[in-house]
Parts: sequence; C-alpha cells; structure tokens
Amino acid sequence: MLTVTMLGCGGTQPLPGRALAALAVQAAGHGVLLDCGEGTQTALRRWGVSAYRLAAVLLTHYHGDHILGLPGLLQTLGSLGRTAPLVVAGPAAGQQAVADAVAALAGALPFAVQWRAAETPFAAGPLTVTPFALAHRVPCCGWALTLPRAGRFDPARARAAGVPLALWRTLQSGQAAGGFTPDQVLGPPRRGLKIVYATDTRPCPALQAAAAGADLLCMDATYAADADLPKAKLYGHATCREAGALAAAAGVRRLWLTHYSAAVTDPAPGLAAAQSAFPAAVAGADGLRLDLEFDKEETP
Amino acid sequence: MLTVTMLGCGGTQPLPGRALAALAVQAAGHGVLLDCGEGTQTALRRWGVSAYRLAAVLLTHYHGDHILGLPGLLQTLGSLGRTAPLVVAGPAAGQQAVADAVAALAGALPFAVQWRAAETPFAAGPLTVTPFALAHRVPCCGWALTLPRAGRFDPARARAAGVPLALWRTLQSGQAAGGFTPDQVLGPPRRGLKIVYATDTRPCPALQAAAAGADLLCMDATYAADADLPKAKLYGHATCREAGALAAAAGVRRLWLTHYSAAVTDPAPGLAAAQSAFPAAVAGADGLRLDLEFDKEETP
Repeated sequence: MLTVTMLGCGGTQPLPGRALAALAVQAAGHGVLLDCGEGTQTALRRWGVSAYRLAAVLLTHYHGDHILGLPGLLQTLGSLGRTAPLVVAGPAAGQQAVADAVAALAGALPFAVQWRAAETPFAAGPLTVTPFALAHRVPCCGWALTLPRAGRFDPARARAAGVPLALWRTLQSGQAAGGFTPDQVLGPPRRGLKIVYATDTRPCPALQAAAAGADLLCMDATYAADADLPKAKLYGHATCREAGALAAAAGVRRLWLTHYSAAVTDPAPGLAAAQSAFPAAVAGADGLRLDLEFDKEETP
Repeated sequence: MLTVTMLGCGGTQPLPGRALAALAVQAAGHGVLLDCGEGTQTALRRWGVSAYRLAAVLLTHYHGDHILGLPGLLQTLGSLGRTAPLVVAGPAAGQQAVADAVAALAGALPFAVQWRAAETPFAAGPLTVTPFALAHRVPCCGWALTLPRAGRFDPARARAAGVPLALWRTLQSGQAAGGFTPDQVLGPPRRGLKIVYATDTRPCPALQAAAAGADLLCMDATYAADADLPKAKLYGHATCREAGALAAAAGVRRLWLTHYSAAVTDPAPGLAAAQSAFPAAVAGADGLRLDLEFDKEETP
C-alpha cells in the first residue's frame, strides 16, 4: 500500500557509490520526495521511482546537500510535460531566498512551483504530511507521513441505516454515496501507516514524539563511532548509537540509518552500535526499498 | 603532458549510466573544468580527477544541464579547504543572474569566485583558454585550450650570448635567469597541444576555424540519426554525421562525440555516421581518457 525507497544515504557530498540522503514515498500512484540534493533525480531513475506523479517535495532544511538537485528536478519534470502545480515545502526561515535562486536557475517551467512554509499538516496525494521541529544548527524540520486507514465496515450498521447493498462497497472505500456517509457504516479509524524522516538533527524530544510507533523511522546517523559524539553535538547530527536509542525510546517498528558522513566507508560498526539499543536497525544503502501494508487483522 | 577526461557525454538530463556532458583537462598539476551540470562533481570523483587544483571552470552557456552542478562543486571545494580564487568564465549575457543565484545557493565560501565574461583569451595554469562563438539558441561559446611549447634550445646561441652553463636548464624551461631571457637561446615556438570543446552548437565557420588542426575536438553530437537533422537545426545542435564532417573539414587529429540525447541508447549508428567523414571519430563515453604528448621530433 506504501513503498519507501532510500534514494541515497550520504551527507555533505554526493559520492560515486553513495547518493545524497533522500527518500521517496509512493502510495496509490502518488509520490512524495523527501529532500533533493545534487543527483536525486538520477537516483529516482536509477531505482525506478517515477518522478512524474510527484505530489510534493518536502525539504528538511536549506543546506546544499538537501536542495541543490531541485533546479534540475524541476527542469526534468518540465521536460516530462508536467503542468500540475508542485508543492515544495520546507522551513519558513530562508525559504524566499532559496525559492528565488532555484527559480532563477530552473528558468521558465510549464507548471507552478508552490512554495509552502512547513508549519501545518497538509495532504499530498493520499498521505498526510506533518512537519515538526528538529534540532540542527539551522532551522530544520522532520516530516511524518501518514496513510490513514478507515474503520472496519459494519454490515449490521449498514443494514440498520437502510443502505442499499449496491452502495456498500463505495461507502466501505470511504466515499459518500446515495446520501449516506462512511461514518454511518464504518467503525473507528484503524491503525494506518506512518513514516518519519528526520535529518539533519540531534536526538530531541520533538523527534521522539513524532516518531512514536512509526512503521519506519529514517534518521540522521552521520557518525558511526561513539568517539564522534562531540562532532555530532557540534554540527547538529547524531551518531548511529543515538539513532538506535531514539528508535527504541520511540517504539518504532523499523529504523533506517542515513546521512552517513563520507568518512563512514563501512556501515557495519555503526549498525552494530545502533542495534545494541534497537536490534531491527538497518544500515542505510542506496536503493533500499520497503513495501508496507496495513496490519493484518483477524476476520471478526 | 596533458590529460583529458570525459566526465559525461549526455545532454539535457543526467542518467544513471551517463553523466551530463563535461570535460576535465589537466596539465602540470592544474585542472580546467569545461561545463558543470548536475553530477559533475560526482563524475570528477568517479574518474579520479582531483578537483582541488582547479584553475578555472569554463562554461559554454547557462542552460541547466551545463551549470546546475556549480553550487555543489563550489561547496565541495570549500569543504576541501580551498582558499585560492576560482575563475568561472562564460558568456557575458545572463551571467550576472546566474552568478547571483549560484552564490545564493552555495552560501558562504572560503574562497572568491571570480566570474569572467568569455571575451578574450586568458591563462589557466599552464594553459591558454580562448573562447569563441558557437551557434546555439542562446549565447554560447566554445573553448580552445592550448598548451604552448617553447622553441628548441640552441646551444650555439647560448654560447654566443655568453650564458653560463648553470643557467641553460632554466632558460631552456622558458624562465629568465641571470639577466638572460629565453628568447636569447630558444628557437621559434614549436607545435603545442590544442583541445577544443564545442557544445551546444550547430556546425559553424567559427567552430571550424577554432578547431583547425586541434589534437582533440570534443563536439556536440546530440542526434545519432540523420533523420533528426531538422530537430538539430531547430534546437541548435548537431548530428553525429555533422560532427564528423566538421572534424574532417577542420583537420583535427581526434574527435570525441558528446552531448548525446537521452534517445541515443546505442552510440554505434551515430559513430558510424561520424566515421563516414572522419574515421578516427570516437563515441562519447563517461570516463573516456586521453593522454596527449608533444609531437616527437628527430634530434637535430
């Protein structure tokens, strides 16, 4: 129901074998791109993620390794014939200057770019995307992406309300029909899916709260060695061990480590450190992919 | 004495297996970069070309596929600790707007970027770089890079001028010493080396003149099929066959085809078309490399 692709897992500079950190989330034919450093459009192609039906680009902050692929992506979307407006959301501070520079470099486009300050949740295709504050050295926001799941269909309520059988399927899918509304026939909303993307950041309470119970947390793990903790604090990043600890504290189901420093040539030691607190941690890797389904339930 | 590396050979969009057209030319430890699309800094790393001692970036024009890698390259040079000013040269028209946007995205740098209108020849390390007008749909310039070669050392003239033996080697290398100048002991300049980079462009007399006798011409060959000639004319590009014909007319020694359209998935038919006029044509490929030496001469 929801596919997540890690387009890159590197920080600061794109490397031949490691693209800059970015994530693509696809649901029901719509896509959301998280961060867009230099080379992200190439990674989309490499991993077979269609850029055409992109609903929004969500930026965490305006450091180069998270935004410099934007002018090229916009030009490519234009050459693909896009005419639908594209939402680009990120922190309010500094956004106008970035928007102006990106527009100057991208040139004339056949679609509108709608810059949006990351302040309130909004819809991107079937997803609800919610920004929250991270702790970096510039204004930076994480993103929680949720795919809601309607309540279970209740035939007894449908019959009691007098809903004709021909409308059951439509109401069950969450759409109104024949004067009836889904809430007349559905139980309370069930657990949906939640993806949380959080880089660049120190571990912080807002992140732990936003990540609570997430199906997947993709988090800053710039440094592999615990000895680099002072650097992590200085530059506003996290160590792999800290990412594991936060994942455990937030009770997430899965953790992907990302935004590796170029000095991290072997992900194994950092992964081991993360797994000491969170055994299900996965080392970031370009092209890592995950298909998430709603939880299976017993038939009542 | 001079190493040329094709960093990419694609036009319009970077592809997973084909970076955007760009060339690196290295001589005596100095480097010159020709064009800088999205991903060029990654290609520099991939092919082992040091970005650190870059003397200049020469841009042909300001379409995205030739410039969008510039903000990231500048940031990377900054993180490598560069403090020496970097010359970035390209057409005068539109340069200020690009310079402003690049500066806004690159942010604070520890070195100065010296934008320069491509109007007159200038020195970049040991190379002389000379812009000339191409025929594209926006102002666009090709670049001729020459590595001069001093005249032969003439021992008889050195003795007649009274040059001490200890100074011969210095004067021979082209440097003044002990009140003597090289022209007192050297014969007339000999054939040096010349590289010509010309994309995006139609074939045109200025290009043919600039390329005359070049050791290597790297030229726009966007379209492989002759049937695409109308498109080439419309968009200001060349076909592979046209590139071969121009190389033959200019009497160059080698031709590299570049700036392939994404539709060119097999370079063989285009290469064959170019070779019909210029048998030594080489199909563009990422990582193509050539070491050029001065011509061997008989010892007198």
